[in-house]
Amino acid sequence: MSGKPITLRDMGSFHVGGRIAEISGKPETTVTFSAGGMPARIDPNGAYLVEAMYVQYFLPEDRKGKYPLLLWHGGGLSGVTYETTPDGREGWLTLFLRKGWDVYNSDAVERGRSGFAPPEIVAGEPHFVAMGDAFVRHRIGAAWSDDPAAREQLPGGLFPVEAYDNFARQFVPRWTTTDAAIAAAYDALLDKVGPSVLLLHSQAGGFGFPLAQARPDMVKAIVAVEPAVTGDVARAAALKGVPILMLYGDFIDRSARWPAMRQNGLAFAEAVRTAGGDVDVVDLPAAGMRGNSHMMMMDRNNAAIADLIHDWLVARGLVA
Amino acid sequence: MSGKPITLRDMGSFHVGGRIAEISGKPETTVTFSAGGMPARIDPNGAYLVEAMYVQYFLPEDRKGKYPLLLWHGGGLSGVTYETTPDGREGWLTLFLRKGWDVYNSDAVERGRSGFAPPEIVAGEPHFVAMGDAFVRHRIGAAWSDDPAAREQLPGGLFPVEAYDNFARQFVPRWTTTDAAIAAAYDALLDKVGPSVLLLHSQAGGFGFPLAQARPDMVKAIVAVEPAVTGDVARAAALKGVPILMLYGDFIDRSARWPAMRQNGLAFAEAVRTAGGDVDVVDLPAAGMRGNSHMMMMDRNNAAIADLIHDWLVARGLVA
Repeated sequence: MSGKPITLRDMGSFHVGGRIAEISGKPETTVTFSAGGMPARIDPNGAYLVEAMYVQYFLPEDRKGKYPLLLWHGGGLSGVTYETTPDGREGWLTLFLRKGWDVYNSDAVERGRSGFAPPEIVAGEPHFVAMGDAFVRHRIGAAWSDDPAAREQLPGGLFPVEAYDNFARQFVPRWTTTDAAIAAAYDALLDKVGPSVLLLHSQAGGFGFPLAQARPDMVKAIVAVEPAVTGDVARAAALKGVPILMLYGDFIDRSARWPAMRQNGLAFAEAVRTAGGDVDVVDLPAAGMRGNSHMMMMDRNNAAIADLIHDWLVARGLVA
Repeated sequence: MSGKPITLRDMGSFHVGGRIAEISGKPETTVTFSAGGMPARIDPNGAYLVEAMYVQYFLPEDRKGKYPLLLWHGGGLSGVTYETTPDGREGWLTLFLRKGWDVYNSDAVERGRSGFAPPEIVAGEPHFVAMGDAFVRHRIGAAWSDDPAAREQLPGGLFPVEAYDNFARQFVPRWTTTDAAIAAAYDALLDKVGPSVLLLHSQAGGFGFPLAQARPDMVKAIVAVEPAVTGDVARAAALKGVPILMLYGDFIDRSARWPAMRQNGLAFAEAVRTAGGDVDVVDLPAAGMRGNSHMMMMDRNNAAIADLIHDWLVARGLVA
């Protein structure tokens, strides 16, 4: 903590979106949910409310951001991404709150506090994130070892590797069959909170950019932190009125997938620019910030990157 | 919202507990996580960090509670239980924060932001909560109908039925195979935050009472809101120094399970009293508060019940 108190004019949570679906034709069962508790006769048939999305909000008393700032996390993760860092420093949620932004932090459909649907209603298997897979795939280290002392961090890397296990505690299962439901819930969130600034990490690029192309009047700016996916290049002109900042960290050339994903992002940026849009792409190493992983909101310089984002939003007239 | 700002000296989140487990012998696969993204080669083998518990904390600047107040939710739910009510009023999290309590709100292992483990590591199937099942089982209504207009609320019931769908959006899958892991994570939470007041709802009684019996020095009081399970009667004397408040709502005689579960609670209370303990059992209808469901932290009179709990804690010398 920085030590200064935070004063909120409001805080709370809600769910948006979702649909009611029915299960039928299954037998009743008896379940003792709690050891020592009373058995309950459970009829699994009937209506289920599925595919809603959990959103938590914190509204500072001294509001400066002109629009809500929506924090959308990446794959295999939840809104915890933006909270306290794995090594216990302030995350972007409170850093942006301190800068005067109304912050809305969500868990994509099927993850975290959004819950997931019965397999009879939403097909597909959960995918789990292994510790070593994320260590390499998120450009934290070059090679994983179950022995913490033998894990090889990338040279000059800024991820707090000593707290890597705490990061792994944040992993949640993900599905590959829920994209449409996730997109619908984000759309419902815009309906609920109105025109907003979207801060998209990784997988969330694939939801935020298309939604902004469909509803450009509802999106006042996009901050895309290493988007794994962007929008439809053929419809780039839809974003000519939506300022866009894209951030990429270090070590991209050491990754199997990031050179191509970054290239896709650059091509999309160029298409929006050609259509008359305002797109800034910041390669952090070229801007003098070396060592950032894919999880830059948790890296040791996360406050400096939040400053960079906030300053860019100030320059776009989005801060009072 | 009540309209008054909330000033926090700190807020954030962490995970506690958990263990590392290995998966081996499974084939590699290629997964395209995001439509339009790059396929990733995934090796499902290796180390996973499972069974950790997510905890979010809010610490008021004007602290009055002498110990942290830990909010432990019931089955099929998450920490969302204590946040904004389904109809948009303040929940117990902010109500107790406003009373000066350091509040720690968690998601039990396998639920919400705690994530759940691969089935290769933790056996068992998730159980899903149907809308109609919870409507009757939590003593909100006498009979469910998919047609909201035809749903029959219990006479004088205080659950905000018009927002029942929002409550159903909060349901998360639960397991029956994770009790030991949940208990271990709560134990780790006490290690992290120190001596605390436990506020237990429903299923959480089965974790909080046994933990208090094992570590009575770490539990300064227990507030049990319709505990589905309590502790070990044979070890009731362990709680003679831990003041206990048990709350029960209305309509218990209309329930298939609650008469027996309440009777178990009363028997446990009597055993602790016989051993010299301080146990108050409040039947809310007998105390003049009629109409409460099992989800009394969401009922229309949730603020009055929070007052009752706080006053009881004041009387126990737990508020400065």
